[in-house]
Amino acid sequence: MQKFRIAVDMHGGDGGVCVLSKAVLSASQKLDESVSFTLCGAEAEIKAEFSKICADIVFNSERFSICDSKPQGNAINNISRLWRTAHDLSIIKCVLLQKDKKVCASFSAGDTGTLYSSALFLLGREAGIERAALAIAMPTISEKQTVLLDIGANAECSPRHLFHFGILGEKYYRKITKESKPKIGILNIGRETYKGTVAVREAAAMMKKEFGEQFFGFVEGNEIFDGKVDVIVCDGFCGNAILKTSESLYHFIQMKIQNLLPPEAIKKMQQFNSSSYGCAPILGLKGNVFKAHGNSSVEALSRAIIKAVESANI
Amino acid sequence: MQKFRIAVDMHGGDGGVCVLSKAVLSASQKLDESVSFTLCGAEAEIKAEFSKICADIVFNSERFSICDSKPQGNAINNISRLWRTAHDLSIIKCVLLQKDKKVCASFSAGDTGTLYSSALFLLGREAGIERAALAIAMPTISEKQTVLLDIGANAECSPRHLFHFGILGEKYYRKITKESKPKIGILNIGRETYKGTVAVREAAAMMKKEFGEQFFGFVEGNEIFDGKVDVIVCDGFCGNAILKTSESLYHFIQMKIQNLLPPEAIKKMQQFNSSSYGCAPILGLKGNVFKAHGNSSVEALSRAIIKAVESANI
Repeated sequence: MQKFRIAVDMHGGDGGVCVLSKAVLSASQKLDESVSFTLCGAEAEIKAEFSKICADIVFNSERFSICDSKPQGNAINNISRLWRTAHDLSIIKCVLLQKDKKVCASFSAGDTGTLYSSALFLLGREAGIERAALAIAMPTISEKQTVLLDIGANAECSPRHLFHFGILGEKYYRKITKESKPKIGILNIGRETYKGTVAVREAAAMMKKEFGEQFFGFVEGNEIFDGKVDVIVCDGFCGNAILKTSESLYHFIQMKIQNLLPPEAIKKMQQFNSSSYGCAPILGLKGNVFKAHGNSSVEALSRAIIKAVESANI
Repeated sequence: MQKFRIAVDMHGGDGGVCVLSKAVLSASQKLDESVSFTLCGAEAEIKAEFSKICADIVFNSERFSICDSKPQGNAINNISRLWRTAHDLSIIKCVLLQKDKKVCASFSAGDTGTLYSSALFLLGREAGIERAALAIAMPTISEKQTVLLDIGANAECSPRHLFHFGILGEKYYRKITKESKPKIGILNIGRETYKGTVAVREAAAMMKKEFGEQFFGFVEGNEIFDGKVDVIVCDGFCGNAILKTSESLYHFIQMKIQNLLPPEAIKKMQQFNSSSYGCAPILGLKGNVFKAHGNSSVEALSRAIIKAVESANI
């Protein structure tokens, strides 16, 4: 593997520096030595956390460096313009380092809107793509993964935006799997061509023209984990609801039957927890930017960092 | 219980007359004798099915009668206008009988669009309500139910439509539970007031004014099964995706861990199957109309018919 440096937002996510320090350490132990980390966050806090978990880490070494910056905090409005001015925030610092070619990729479990707008305006969009989208690869019954996008970056989408998500999803699926002709579907409330919103019907017409036989047509919610379709396109509002509903139902089922389950079943259940799906790349940017679930555990974040590095390196 | 007659669309649902006959028979055995059934469908077929499962049913008795009518079939366009002309379809016949006061309620597991438009145009809307909505009561971690609406009748909704769904959901929740001041939330991609679509933000402002302290604010998908909110409002596109995703994830989990589960856990798992949530009333109509899941089993349809009768009688 060529040398690869990733910027990690150490204040992103509900667990903050404490959880992220453990996740970075764990990921670094599993990844090749050629992968190095720039940790964006409060320097003193990061050093204090690492001193608790690993005494012999040398910062400002080849492998680990710190870029002193601040947490975003909770109540900030106008996040879509923060990238202009708030260059001292850890989440924006990651993207700034990437813009200046100091790192190859950015990773954050922080606020989606801040990460998305910073990445969009500082790195720029791919040519011909009107909107970048957050994508997630989910497990399915058929053992194949299904990529769902957008999962929360664009609450309102035109037919053209949805069409572009199809293009981005198709390319991403080919990149992360060996499938040369992934099947692309659009989420709708029924299979019939007259059903749904104007946006999905018009997007379907564009996709049919673009993808030909690769276009599957409309997909309903009850087919999401079927594995029949490789890429499912929807607006960010609905995609976000789908992903988070899955999380909610998983916890509900887990809570209600956990004490009845043998250890093997408990272990198997964990694959359905959406926080273990890994990280979500923002597709359609000139650069690799990854968003992880804010409520992730150390293990989930460690896996997400590894996935991000692997996915950026394919 | 006062005399109560319900019209059942015997061709609605994937199992057709065979499954619905068994469901009606099972429900009739559990319901009071004062509840009677008008079975809308092909008379010969219905009689043939019932002769297989219960030799001593007398049709055109006080309790069971048949209203000869046809199945809808699959590929019919212009469903929103079918109610004008296709009066021989079983699904529309139910609503026509209700319009003529021959029955007190209609029940169908058939096409949502056909049932919705027939009910809307033949029975009419409640005063002050611009759009009727399909609602479903879902189980939650807290043992309380949460009502989600709309789950598929209105793919595109204005802020005012969403606001009206809040009014309908609040009234329905008070009707089916003892809760006098249910909490109303709106589905969004975040809790912050600046997040989401224009429609949800404007609807939130209207609901805050209308419901005061009963208004919970925005709810995210990962809170759906929490039981913190009693009524969750969303457009029919997203509600449909949420309900069907839950169904898909349930089947996925069940399939993957079923062989590891003790019988008690398998039984407990069934409560999470959305086909066991019961029937979905269309709220906002001048009359009781119920939609059941097309893919329901005999047991699920039987439970749904019982729920429909109970809910119409409260």
